[in-house]
Amino acid sequence: MALTPYQQLAQEFRKLHAFRGALSLLRWDAAVMMPRGSSEVRGEQMAALETEYHALLTAPKIARLIERANANAAQLEDWEVANLRRMKHQRDHAIATPVALISRLAKATARAEVKWLEAREQNNFAGFAPHLEEVVKLVRDKAQLLAQALSLSPYDALLDGFSSGITSADIDDIFRTLGRRLPTLIKEAQERQAERPALPLSGKFGAAKQRQLATEVMRAIGFPFDRGRLDESEHPFTEGVPGDIRVTTRFDTAEVFTGLLGALHETGHAMYDLGLPQEWRDQPVGRDRGMALEESQSLLLEMLVGRSRPFLRYLKPLLEKHFAVSGPEWEIENLYRHVITLKRGLIRVDADELTYPLHIMLRYELERQILAGELAVKDLPEAWNAGMDAKLGVRPASDTDGCLQDIHWAVGSFGYFPSYALGAVIAAQLHEAMLADQPGVEEEYATGKFTALFDWLRRNVHGLGAKLSVQDLIKNATGKPLSAAPFLRYAEAKYLEPLT
Amino acid sequence: MALTPYQQLAQEFRKLHAFRGALSLLRWDAAVMMPRGSSEVRGEQMAALETEYHALLTAPKIARLIERANANAAQLEDWEVANLRRMKHQRDHAIATPVALISRLAKATARAEVKWLEAREQNNFAGFAPHLEEVVKLVRDKAQLLAQALSLSPYDALLDGFSSGITSADIDDIFRTLGRRLPTLIKEAQERQAERPALPLSGKFGAAKQRQLATEVMRAIGFPFDRGRLDESEHPFTEGVPGDIRVTTRFDTAEVFTGLLGALHETGHAMYDLGLPQEWRDQPVGRDRGMALEESQSLLLEMLVGRSRPFLRYLKPLLEKHFAVSGPEWEIENLYRHVITLKRGLIRVDADELTYPLHIMLRYELERQILAGELAVKDLPEAWNAGMDAKLGVRPASDTDGCLQDIHWAVGSFGYFPSYALGAVIAAQLHEAMLADQPGVEEEYATGKFTALFDWLRRNVHGLGAKLSVQDLIKNATGKPLSAAPFLRYAEAKYLEPLT
Repeated sequence: MALTPYQQLAQEFRKLHAFRGALSLLRWDAAVMMPRGSSEVRGEQMAALETEYHALLTAPKIARLIERANANAAQLEDWEVANLRRMKHQRDHAIATPVALISRLAKATARAEVKWLEAREQNNFAGFAPHLEEVVKLVRDKAQLLAQALSLSPYDALLDGFSSGITSADIDDIFRTLGRRLPTLIKEAQERQAERPALPLSGKFGAAKQRQLATEVMRAIGFPFDRGRLDESEHPFTEGVPGDIRVTTRFDTAEVFTGLLGALHETGHAMYDLGLPQEWRDQPVGRDRGMALEESQSLLLEMLVGRSRPFLRYLKPLLEKHFAVSGPEWEIENLYRHVITLKRGLIRVDADELTYPLHIMLRYELERQILAGELAVKDLPEAWNAGMDAKLGVRPASDTDGCLQDIHWAVGSFGYFPSYALGAVIAAQLHEAMLADQPGVEEEYATGKFTALFDWLRRNVHGLGAKLSVQDLIKNATGKPLSAAPFLRYAEAKYLEPLT
Repeated sequence: MALTPYQQLAQEFRKLHAFRGALSLLRWDAAVMMPRGSSEVRGEQMAALETEYHALLTAPKIARLIERANANAAQLEDWEVANLRRMKHQRDHAIATPVALISRLAKATARAEVKWLEAREQNNFAGFAPHLEEVVKLVRDKAQLLAQALSLSPYDALLDGFSSGITSADIDDIFRTLGRRLPTLIKEAQERQAERPALPLSGKFGAAKQRQLATEVMRAIGFPFDRGRLDESEHPFTEGVPGDIRVTTRFDTAEVFTGLLGALHETGHAMYDLGLPQEWRDQPVGRDRGMALEESQSLLLEMLVGRSRPFLRYLKPLLEKHFAVSGPEWEIENLYRHVITLKRGLIRVDADELTYPLHIMLRYELERQILAGELAVKDLPEAWNAGMDAKLGVRPASDTDGCLQDIHWAVGSFGYFPSYALGAVIAAQLHEAMLADQPGVEEEYATGKFTALFDWLRRNVHGLGAKLSVQDLIKNATGKPLSAAPFLRYAEAKYLEPLT
């Protein structure tokens, strides 16, 4: 029997899914296994596969099939209609940006990344600025083309590439709410923490033992080591596809929490991917619902679970077993104080749960101004430093610790930053709803059980894939629209807890 | 300026080269890193990339460009004409076998491989036979189609896929010569070895230390660890492309030579690949000249270098350093006796240098009879056992140790086996010529220097890529056509050496 247009599309996207999986493995290998001198060869392999991926996705055949499948959409099931929508979305994004622009952007960002590394090392923003300007110019062109194709504003069109369905109006609203409360909340919380600072957790923590600990915890969470791996890399990340998920972390032998919490964060991503609907797994509707939701899942595990007393009750005997530690600093209350200590720092990736959104809000404001032409690239350092001062009360002594710290803009990822803070907000909203549905679930963490948590997440988040919009997904799961209120409630309860 | 047809072809094959590199990494990962449960996902990824590779190679555009480039071949350089020939060869192979047949064969071999694993475990040839019959039928169809397209006999058409330019007439000639001398030579040599058997090399040899030893030896040989890796896998292999070469071996902690000689064997492959002409590296002419020549390079390093007294003089202090061994059994003469001990065994992969070709000759005879329909699959066990008896004087007690021991036929690799024995023959011919050109080179091995050896191989073999036919390459390098005589001279000198 001849395949329907929809079935033919499904077949094409199955192939694209396989390409994505192969590309993901090439990236994982490049960061974890590849010899240093092989990056040029790998670059050629990735470029060839990406070009072919783009060619397959933008082939006239796909557009024709989408049109024909849409004409017969009445015969499709709900999830298939959603799938068709996601297919069209992917194709619209791909076709809006001509290959020539993609290729110019790829070259400009490759150059800018090298220059950024040098500039960061030498604290030389001036050497980087012309390359960033070139990237900004091309990203602006891309945003303009995407905006026309998607009927969105240019910045919203960029956002749409990372977290489809979330607009700058949503973000403005949430960041306004956070901006009104977070600075005073941080101040109050820091004053309390100063009264009872955490005792230092000194010692030597061998990487092999940290790895055993992380593996044991990941196993308890439900990470399937027969269909996934844990490795080490300079920056923690998650790659792969459900069926072969690869997470990494980085172990600091002077410190026991960084590696574990990094692994927890990435396991949050992995559990999301693993919980995606199995029967849609090679289709666009079977993918995650964008970066903000991805980040909500990693932060939920790292921050709301990992930095909670019940989890530390589970962890304490494991720390004793793996590192033979003891003493008052290894008691649960001190461990808790340790993992929730707030600090107004200069570096985003080292930031705590409450100052982190302020780092993001600054980047969001600045990247919008740059793209709109309201802030010149050359004036970025001054704007950055002033912004840090205003938001966090600290001022970088160098651009290396200031506007040169992140790779995102160098590689053209404008519109990505907000996902991080939105993730924290969504995580709190989901966790609050989960606790309302299933009171007492947190107590399970103390026994190393996470089944009820993930059952709820599977039902309400993971198992839906990309069928609903982010907004609808959140509304269905929590009964309320996306809002910063749960995050602030959670933050206040956790950080302004009455002293015992 | 518009690209010439040849330049356009070069661009297309650059992309195909990148695809091959990506596929090679997926295979490496599957054997070395991939979690056990991820093979289905990986299978889908490989199939998608292979299908796309085939589609790109057989696109009408390629045929048109080859025709147009051929019409203007007068304006091309020598190596470009050779490249054009190799492009046409690859395309002719790909187009001769329709996608439907490739796909049926892929499914049949996937099933047969599973059944072969079971059958080998349970010594149940009857359970495997119908699946092998299905594979044989499809391979026959493929051979027929290739034969028509390439104007070769069906079996020669299969050979052409592994070692283009070598025919069954060449193989018959060489195997006849080997068959006349090897059995008596083995008999005489074994009688001598029985007079002075090697003392056993007992001990425990930790995998980590064996790895250090192998790494040190590979470094001395010139393996570039900044553009390559050594890992462990169930069967040693080499994957990757020049620029990112990955070899594996397997360490047996009860035995010190298996892992090292396995690594040497694979390093021989890697050094060939690494020595391929850099400026042609992403073109068909820049590839190796087929499996027989590949195998000659691995065997040259494993057998002619690795199992020589000078090499053992270099190795002895390294064994002492890494394993703190001493005593008469670790003296050079005993190590030498150990690595050249002959044994008429049942298993090909465990066979020594002299009995190995006899194992291959049996497989060659049987696979030709099966494909020609002269031997029914169901009668294979009996023919195998009779052949083993006739050639080696041993008779398998089970099919597991008999005709079920190799994976090749299950996965449809008919025509592959001869490469192994041809490799040994070519290795001896090249090494003899190299020593005639540069007397005394062997003495360099004793000091851990392999520069003169590889300089010669680069000039005469590696650096030529696939520009010449195998026959012409051997004739240019050694002054004589391919012949079994040097192998027999080498074998007689080594194994019938007067006792000292």
